[in-house]
Amino acid sequence: MVNFLSIFTMRNLFFLSLALNLSLIMRVFYEAEKHGPHELSARKADSGLEKAAHATQRTLVSLSSSGQDDGEKLINLDHGDPTMYESYWQQMGEKTTVVIPGWQSMSYFSDVKNPCWFLEPEFAKQVVRLHNLVGNAVTEGRQIVVGTGSSQLFLAALYALAPKDASEPISVISAAPFYSSYPSMTDYLKSGLYKWAGDARSFDKEGPYIELVTSPNNPDGFVRHSMVNRSGGILVHDLAYYWPQYTPISSAADHDLTLFTVSKATGHAGTRIGWALVKDPEVAKKMIKFIELSTIGVSRDSQLRAARILEVIINSSQNPGRPESGESFFKISHHLMAERWQLLREAVNRGRFFSLPDFQQGFCQFLNQVSQPQPAFAWLKCEDESVEDCESLLRDHKILTRGGRSFGVGPKYIRVSMLDRDHNFNLFLKRLASIQT
Amino acid sequence: MVNFLSIFTMRNLFFLSLALNLSLIMRVFYEAEKHGPHELSARKADSGLEKAAHATQRTLVSLSSSGQDDGEKLINLDHGDPTMYESYWQQMGEKTTVVIPGWQSMSYFSDVKNPCWFLEPEFAKQVVRLHNLVGNAVTEGRQIVVGTGSSQLFLAALYALAPKDASEPISVISAAPFYSSYPSMTDYLKSGLYKWAGDARSFDKEGPYIELVTSPNNPDGFVRHSMVNRSGGILVHDLAYYWPQYTPISSAADHDLTLFTVSKATGHAGTRIGWALVKDPEVAKKMIKFIELSTIGVSRDSQLRAARILEVIINSSQNPGRPESGESFFKISHHLMAERWQLLREAVNRGRFFSLPDFQQGFCQFLNQVSQPQPAFAWLKCEDESVEDCESLLRDHKILTRGGRSFGVGPKYIRVSMLDRDHNFNLFLKRLASIQT
Repeated sequence: MVNFLSIFTMRNLFFLSLALNLSLIMRVFYEAEKHGPHELSARKADSGLEKAAHATQRTLVSLSSSGQDDGEKLINLDHGDPTMYESYWQQMGEKTTVVIPGWQSMSYFSDVKNPCWFLEPEFAKQVVRLHNLVGNAVTEGRQIVVGTGSSQLFLAALYALAPKDASEPISVISAAPFYSSYPSMTDYLKSGLYKWAGDARSFDKEGPYIELVTSPNNPDGFVRHSMVNRSGGILVHDLAYYWPQYTPISSAADHDLTLFTVSKATGHAGTRIGWALVKDPEVAKKMIKFIELSTIGVSRDSQLRAARILEVIINSSQNPGRPESGESFFKISHHLMAERWQLLREAVNRGRFFSLPDFQQGFCQFLNQVSQPQPAFAWLKCEDESVEDCESLLRDHKILTRGGRSFGVGPKYIRVSMLDRDHNFNLFLKRLASIQT
Repeated sequence: MVNFLSIFTMRNLFFLSLALNLSLIMRVFYEAEKHGPHELSARKADSGLEKAAHATQRTLVSLSSSGQDDGEKLINLDHGDPTMYESYWQQMGEKTTVVIPGWQSMSYFSDVKNPCWFLEPEFAKQVVRLHNLVGNAVTEGRQIVVGTGSSQLFLAALYALAPKDASEPISVISAAPFYSSYPSMTDYLKSGLYKWAGDARSFDKEGPYIELVTSPNNPDGFVRHSMVNRSGGILVHDLAYYWPQYTPISSAADHDLTLFTVSKATGHAGTRIGWALVKDPEVAKKMIKFIELSTIGVSRDSQLRAARILEVIINSSQNPGRPESGESFFKISHHLMAERWQLLREAVNRGRFFSLPDFQQGFCQFLNQVSQPQPAFAWLKCEDESVEDCESLLRDHKILTRGGRSFGVGPKYIRVSMLDRDHNFNLFLKRLASIQT
């Protein structure tokens, strides 16, 4: 007993001293970055929401005056790689750091009592807390199914919803412009269970079908509802972008099957974690079976990391500005997106070459204010008559975007990621301006 | 400059002090565990290979004398959940701990210059180092493709190898007894590209086919080669168990497409990381496309963790016994498996109720000694004529196993995991003995 007590005291002492060291090391890093050449240094040196939100503009000004863009650097805005969020997480320091010892999470099983046996309880808990906080989805009476990104959950949903003994595969549809990967993801294995059937607006086949409703929509950012008003339809709601930084949160989504992903919510795309909220336990069971057959569960390490990230976001929203919780993730992100969209609209409105969608503002229950949709992608249209293929035009200026044909519409449209790092976003704006002059 | 230097010195100081703290904390944990009730405490208190390897036996003895088994606890040996390895990794302390800050690995992309753009360079590096050390596979001239476990890579291989424009799906075969998940994994999506066609031994259909060669085989542990000696066959080698703890390493595998997984190599099943060594760059490209379409890459966090684990294993083999590298993973694991197999054979040989496969010994290039196969699964046969269904018999004794029918053979056989925690393995032996009396 004496021995144990002495160990306890030693352990306490070391933890105390370790905590002290960590905070000092963080300070050193912070100091070093203030003096370093990092593009985010200005933002880090400031404190407070307003100052942070103006960092993009300052970077832009400094870029213009220093004339760094020789037009040679290739900017890849084809994917929605959410690297914009790195700066926020750098600012948050060690709060989101996860430490995983070698002996942790070795078993296949996360929770043998849950039908979704590979779901980490801590991740499930934070998902529920986050939805309750943001108010963007009803979690009560839902089975949470975790997936290797929402892509895997999309495929799991098709598998779960398609009749197993039908004479032909069920039709899968979505209104154009639709997410460019839906057709290939649906058809790449030539499944006998489901088959891509194109634009929901022109779908007139008899019989059952699965309609994918992406809201806000990828690529164009509009709020969407089912397009086919007919019985026999099964809806899958992809709400990857239904977060306060992208669109006003008007009400808690209350659908049969809803998909979310960490990638777009927090910016952690490399972690490959998504989740589904599923009303029918039988559908959930089939989705779980799909994930068992395709990857025998979902990385436990990544779920633990994602759980920590969500927890930090919740804390930052509940106690914004306090040293232990940091600035509110959603408010900072909302400001950054607002600023980017303002800069983009200014650049586009300087000429008549391009146009952008016009959105209706709405009341955001989470931010408690009227706000504008400010999507993760810009859906640009080349209005100039001389341009047939907008994607090629941008590629000539060393900007990779995704052309309208991939989304089921014409080549006058392009989708441009709004989530890249400051430097690339600013180069994009500069080159957009140069195309118009 | 002065400022920067002072920071540098501060940083150095803190790192030094941090390192000191960590080592002290480790010591405290180690001391605490020596005094704790953990089943592995005896092994931890000892040092050296031989003492560690006898821990299982001691636990067994203590269990028998204390009579803890009331026969009520359900033991699940149905899956190959490799929790046996937890004890080794606990012993290794903080060596394998990974620390992932919130801003790390956020992008989808691990390495844009690699055709496998979601492959972490550090993971690829450690895979090559490990194969070179163990001598179990040629890595030169191969593209490494990382997957969410080797299950995903198995499906990726089917997708990559199946002709895209054939009039009917390509046949997928494997010699019985084959891995029980092959048929359902191949057929669950009713793909038009490939179709399960059963036992390779009785396969006589004309035309191309994909043969799965698992060696050592799951479930029976035998070394295997292709069974169908015919042109038009494409081979996929699943070498998940080709590691020194399970089978003598006779030579470096030099096939077209080989699958490995961290789960069986190191015991980290929950991490969901596997890798393929692929000779034909075009095949690799299609596998990469499959993973892009099904999960948009593979968790970067898990790859970083897996890289660290492999690195620690390599160090432990190159400098065994040194404080900084720890006991050799493969030697410890080999000893533990040898001991478990010896105990199992003793238990089985006490009666005539069960039988086990007989293996030929071989020279292991890695261990530099003659050694016996000691598979991750025991392929038990009920020899007693009164028993029709061996799986049911074991279930009556609250032991879950997987019956022969799942593997394409009769119900007289069962597959039993040899990789569970000591306590469960020992309960299994006790109950096996009680069935025979």
